[in-house]
Amino acid sequence: MRQRFLKALMSQPTDTTPIWIMRQAGRYLPEYNATRKKAGSFLNLMKSPEYACEVTLQPLDRYDLDASILFSDILTIPDAMGLGLHFIEGEGPKLANPIRTEQDVDRLYVPDVGTELKYVTDTMSLLSHSLRDRVPVIGFAGSPWTLASYMIEGGGSEDYATAKKMMYTRPDLMHRILSINADSVVQYLNAQILAGANAVMIFDSWGGHLSHDAYQTFSLPYMQQIVSKLIKQHNGAQIPSIIFTKGGGLWLEQMANVGSQAIGLDWTVNLGRARQLVGHKVCLQGNMDPVILRTSEQAVAKEATRILEEFGEGDTGHVFNLGHGINQFTPPEHVEVLVETVHNVGRLQRAKAEKQLTLDLNDTIIDW
Amino acid sequence: MRQRFLKALMSQPTDTTPIWIMRQAGRYLPEYNATRKKAGSFLNLMKSPEYACEVTLQPLDRYDLDASILFSDILTIPDAMGLGLHFIEGEGPKLANPIRTEQDVDRLYVPDVGTELKYVTDTMSLLSHSLRDRVPVIGFAGSPWTLASYMIEGGGSEDYATAKKMMYTRPDLMHRILSINADSVVQYLNAQILAGANAVMIFDSWGGHLSHDAYQTFSLPYMQQIVSKLIKQHNGAQIPSIIFTKGGGLWLEQMANVGSQAIGLDWTVNLGRARQLVGHKVCLQGNMDPVILRTSEQAVAKEATRILEEFGEGDTGHVFNLGHGINQFTPPEHVEVLVETVHNVGRLQRAKAEKQLTLDLNDTIIDW
Repeated sequence: MRQRFLKALMSQPTDTTPIWIMRQAGRYLPEYNATRKKAGSFLNLMKSPEYACEVTLQPLDRYDLDASILFSDILTIPDAMGLGLHFIEGEGPKLANPIRTEQDVDRLYVPDVGTELKYVTDTMSLLSHSLRDRVPVIGFAGSPWTLASYMIEGGGSEDYATAKKMMYTRPDLMHRILSINADSVVQYLNAQILAGANAVMIFDSWGGHLSHDAYQTFSLPYMQQIVSKLIKQHNGAQIPSIIFTKGGGLWLEQMANVGSQAIGLDWTVNLGRARQLVGHKVCLQGNMDPVILRTSEQAVAKEATRILEEFGEGDTGHVFNLGHGINQFTPPEHVEVLVETVHNVGRLQRAKAEKQLTLDLNDTIIDW
Repeated sequence: MRQRFLKALMSQPTDTTPIWIMRQAGRYLPEYNATRKKAGSFLNLMKSPEYACEVTLQPLDRYDLDASILFSDILTIPDAMGLGLHFIEGEGPKLANPIRTEQDVDRLYVPDVGTELKYVTDTMSLLSHSLRDRVPVIGFAGSPWTLASYMIEGGGSEDYATAKKMMYTRPDLMHRILSINADSVVQYLNAQILAGANAVMIFDSWGGHLSHDAYQTFSLPYMQQIVSKLIKQHNGAQIPSIIFTKGGGLWLEQMANVGSQAIGLDWTVNLGRARQLVGHKVCLQGNMDPVILRTSEQAVAKEATRILEEFGEGDTGHVFNLGHGINQFTPPEHVEVLVETVHNVGRLQRAKAEKQLTLDLNDTIIDW
């Protein structure tokens, strides 16, 4: 199996910069849309291990990506808790039974991963088997705060007013939900690891909408709790983890201390400055604005190169990615340009750095 | 006229922390809704100096606020350029003739403020006259990038894909638009100052959606250009300016160097840390999450106190505000709790700091 992605996550040297793309299996690919049509609905697609495995592999057949990611939804856990995940065309995920009262909180429980989320571990087993000679597979879950905000709002939200109202007026209830979510995520991610995930990622999609104070109280500590309870080794291999708070650029130092091997960054962050702030404690994953993939091949190549140069030549511990999921209107050929640019520029940078190192060594010899 | 707000903007000592609220005249106030009904539409309300003046004054009659802000819309400039501002109920502002081709860019011009935006300066004159014994009045405009994104998208956007596509594929066209916008904003804000504005603010509402690199290229330099061309003194008084990039917490040091007296912050920023980063070069304005005003009186008081304590006791150069405009579903009585809390805690902090200073001085005397 190609090790480039896992090595980079663990801040070890690689031949070039690895790349994968958040939501790389998705609606921008015609073959995905064909499978979805066969499956009948997104929910059927996601809950059928065969279909989910099929779409996970599609982008790998098209592009020279360095990792795959389980095809699933962020709301599988609330769904397994009985909150009723469903999709309304063009509106994103909804929960039919959101948490509205203290009694609703009392009824919450950690779902039994072995039965209620078996379709996910079955998908992971299939993937792990299919991919064993190719690239690593990433397991994932939503962060406790992001799950809680969906569970309370019943879907996406502009301002998270209902979830934040609970947070500010009944912090005890919010902490109870977050605690159940954290326990659920631990069991869920560990089950994915046991089923073959080579790395796991926690998506804190809505953490960036919190105040810095609320983030340190209601989001970050629960991610830390999860990371501390994750299986660290499986079948003799280390299982690295990545945490990603969209809009969390102000909290990188705190994120770097959670215990994860890598942190995800969105495009508001300067990679070079991020590296200065966190040192070499963690690998950095990111961070191109997904919109750039919708512009032109030239702009994609230019911006990818700029990001790699910003990170620094020949430095270790960078996984290239977008700063958010790929958009459904992305022309698939632009993704190819991105993957090739990252690999080519990454290789050139390492060659240049090595030459520089040789020159520096020669200089040193002359000086002495 | 009460000077507390202007003194704080210029980082001078004040008796307590001044407070005003972004969008303080608005739909959460029943008296505003009554005037809007009389005016027939938002556009009539905004374009009628009498009505606009009336609603600007309403929150001052209810609350002990330290500043007023011109009641207007961020899109008056594109409207004056002929782009056709209109409102669709529940959808926010729209422009009927967005920029879609290079020819559209060629046709852009700096509007004649004296005729095409006369309703704004007339409102400002009325306000300045009405408020002269009360509190300062703030003039405002959108930032060149924020205006450009509206002008290209034709309204709000989730991802600014059309505007960003121009930015990444035709930066020359984008720079032309931004340059015209910057010239327009200079004339517009200077006309507001001549009509009586005691301070001005530039709202870069969408700057935080840019990559850090794009922000430094397409948003910040144009705000800097504007600030350098603003009238600095009028009728013997200094006219301070404030720049505010929503979501710009990562770029505070760069913002502090633009030449404005103050920078606005949203709630993701830790005020104490912001102060460390920018020193005492600028006043900081912000930064409570507006959602807190929708929770409970207790939570409002607690959170306002926390923010003031975070900023530091007795420190100068803080104007309290929300981190974004007040929401229409805010109970008006919560605003009263906020204003009172800020003034009371601010006074206590200064008294405490003074006592501490006396104690420190005594210590010093004993030590010597």
